[in-house]
Amino acid sequence: MSKGIIYTPRIRKSPFFEETIKDGATNFTTYNHMTMPVGYTTPEQEYNSLINDVTLWDVAGERQVEVVGEDAAKFVQYLTPRNLSTFKDSFCRYAFLTDENGGIINDPLILKFNDQKFWLSIADSDVIYWCKGVALSGNFKVKISEPEACPVSLQGPKSKDLMAKVTNNDPKVMDLKYYQFVETNLFGLDLIVARSGWSNQFGYEIYILREEDGGALWRNLMDAGKEFKIVPSCPNQIDRIEAGMISHLGDTTLNDNPLELNLPKFCDLDQEADFVGKEALKKIRDEGIKKQFTGFKISGKKIGYNMASIPVLDKNGSRSGYITSGIYSPNFGCNIGLGYVNIDLIHSEEIYSAQHDEEQREVEIVPLPFSSRLEKMK
Amino acid sequence: MSKGIIYTPRIRKSPFFEETIKDGATNFTTYNHMTMPVGYTTPEQEYNSLINDVTLWDVAGERQVEVVGEDAAKFVQYLTPRNLSTFKDSFCRYAFLTDENGGIINDPLILKFNDQKFWLSIADSDVIYWCKGVALSGNFKVKISEPEACPVSLQGPKSKDLMAKVTNNDPKVMDLKYYQFVETNLFGLDLIVARSGWSNQFGYEIYILREEDGGALWRNLMDAGKEFKIVPSCPNQIDRIEAGMISHLGDTTLNDNPLELNLPKFCDLDQEADFVGKEALKKIRDEGIKKQFTGFKISGKKIGYNMASIPVLDKNGSRSGYITSGIYSPNFGCNIGLGYVNIDLIHSEEIYSAQHDEEQREVEIVPLPFSSRLEKMK
Repeated sequence: MSKGIIYTPRIRKSPFFEETIKDGATNFTTYNHMTMPVGYTTPEQEYNSLINDVTLWDVAGERQVEVVGEDAAKFVQYLTPRNLSTFKDSFCRYAFLTDENGGIINDPLILKFNDQKFWLSIADSDVIYWCKGVALSGNFKVKISEPEACPVSLQGPKSKDLMAKVTNNDPKVMDLKYYQFVETNLFGLDLIVARSGWSNQFGYEIYILREEDGGALWRNLMDAGKEFKIVPSCPNQIDRIEAGMISHLGDTTLNDNPLELNLPKFCDLDQEADFVGKEALKKIRDEGIKKQFTGFKISGKKIGYNMASIPVLDKNGSRSGYITSGIYSPNFGCNIGLGYVNIDLIHSEEIYSAQHDEEQREVEIVPLPFSSRLEKMK
Repeated sequence: MSKGIIYTPRIRKSPFFEETIKDGATNFTTYNHMTMPVGYTTPEQEYNSLINDVTLWDVAGERQVEVVGEDAAKFVQYLTPRNLSTFKDSFCRYAFLTDENGGIINDPLILKFNDQKFWLSIADSDVIYWCKGVALSGNFKVKISEPEACPVSLQGPKSKDLMAKVTNNDPKVMDLKYYQFVETNLFGLDLIVARSGWSNQFGYEIYILREEDGGALWRNLMDAGKEFKIVPSCPNQIDRIEAGMISHLGDTTLNDNPLELNLPKFCDLDQEADFVGKEALKKIRDEGIKKQFTGFKISGKKIGYNMASIPVLDKNGSRSGYITSGIYSPNFGCNIGLGYVNIDLIHSEEIYSAQHDEEQREVEIVPLPFSSRLEKMK
């Protein structure tokens, strides 16, 4: 059986794989060398379920890199420009990892158990190699490994009702603040439940600790979710682009740095702690960034989500930027994109152009979040 | 258009992608975050062309990690247990990279330009992160990057005739020894031609230096190869398993070490030079390895190549090893596999069993190479 991916031994099976096949997954991608479903029905149908009801995603490919040891806190801080000095136990933080040039290695959600134990819940690149390499310097007493643990994502406004049902209104879970997590047991399985997820909706990420628990967790959530119209789904590109959320390797690479993303909260160059890339990023700050991450409004027929770095040209045909992710937005009623523009054009209100799907399109630069401007244009 | 992979911006397009689509690629995998075709006709048809004629593979996903700088030679030696002290300029060497525990990070083909410049032509894992992390220690004056350079593979007995035609019998290319490479120009393109490739047949790997040259190289080789019955193809699992060649992440992972592979040439623990994992591997050697890589003969109906770690059981039902790659071999006329057995069973002539494709199969342990024993059994 081929469902759009070749099942070579090199590609690991997600612990939820068999259940997602039963539930009608029609296509897969690979993520951290593991299968990840990327479609059951259509992105639009799944989007509607996500914003109105509740959806369950197999995101086991978001592997965990576990850092334990007496220097774990110092080590994790050394990996990121984000200032972690106020990072509390049992909370998550989103952070960029940077290389010696300030380039982006990954953008994990970091789970802090305590000062001696962290998980990096990673995007699609081998962060374990990076961490092991950095640790070789010998300056940190840490052990780095990849546990079996991996999440499903339960996203959508009715995820809270579903969680109330399956936990019997357990306050330990129901009182979780945004980005807080708790170790618990549901359906007889040891799990971690976090109020997090790669969507703009209310939701949870639920981590199994042992791969063999994957099938049971998936099936129990799908069964309990029927009354809330749960559907099997996958990371929804419409929703995340509308929210301006980054997809690493799509929107960010080693050639991009956190300063270009215009998210000052995630890049504190003046903090006391040292981190990889600090000097390089200070130099970039002093010299001024060359390009900046932004939103785009794109004219013409509906855009499908696809592989591209689409050049954005000014009226003289000069390359002014490029689109890294684009899609049709039902919410804003137009095509939107994420990408980069030359820094001196960041406030430009010119009409640019882009060639895509054999169509010449008009492109406007829209500051993020999209809602600040596009909603007024409706 | 979907041909078995979702074209998200996160997945890079191979520079040969458009040409492989034109030539009928029907399915793709991802390799180092890049598309790689894995089928045009059937594995058997492609195998026949590979062993009789000539085949052209898009293996751009085998990215290059470039190491340059005054300590490049010392740095590359530090990455691998293979003794590189006699490594000559303009030659390639296959080597394992090991982590601090002796676990396998990757198994690149290393190209040595000179003491200050190397390429690691890598299997499917982010070696660039590992190298950058190791270099952070500050003990090496090196710069690490991923150039645009990437190979096609031209494999099969008639590859030499084709190369004679397109180089007009240039001795610089025609006199290349096994694993030697040369910088040259063909079809007006700057290229590197190496006598190497992931097959058991005569062949070349030809590297473009700029992504934009991909289409022209592919098309020129396909056109010139018509008289030699060239077919577009892909890394052939039948041929490589018959040859006992390793597929990293399929057959080897961080949980396996080079000593278990029984390839002493690639693991010199007594060399003078230091390398990552040396102490760990010495300890493993002293304590004795627990499992060893081997071949298997497998009974029953033909096995297709697929995702699996298939347990091998003894007659009491105890797990004695596992199959990491299996396939039907036209050459040996039976199913064969690669994998690991408990070290004390390595010379066992017992009949073991494995459950696969709803069939109970008999499994025999066959030392590698397969030809040493299976050909006698025909």
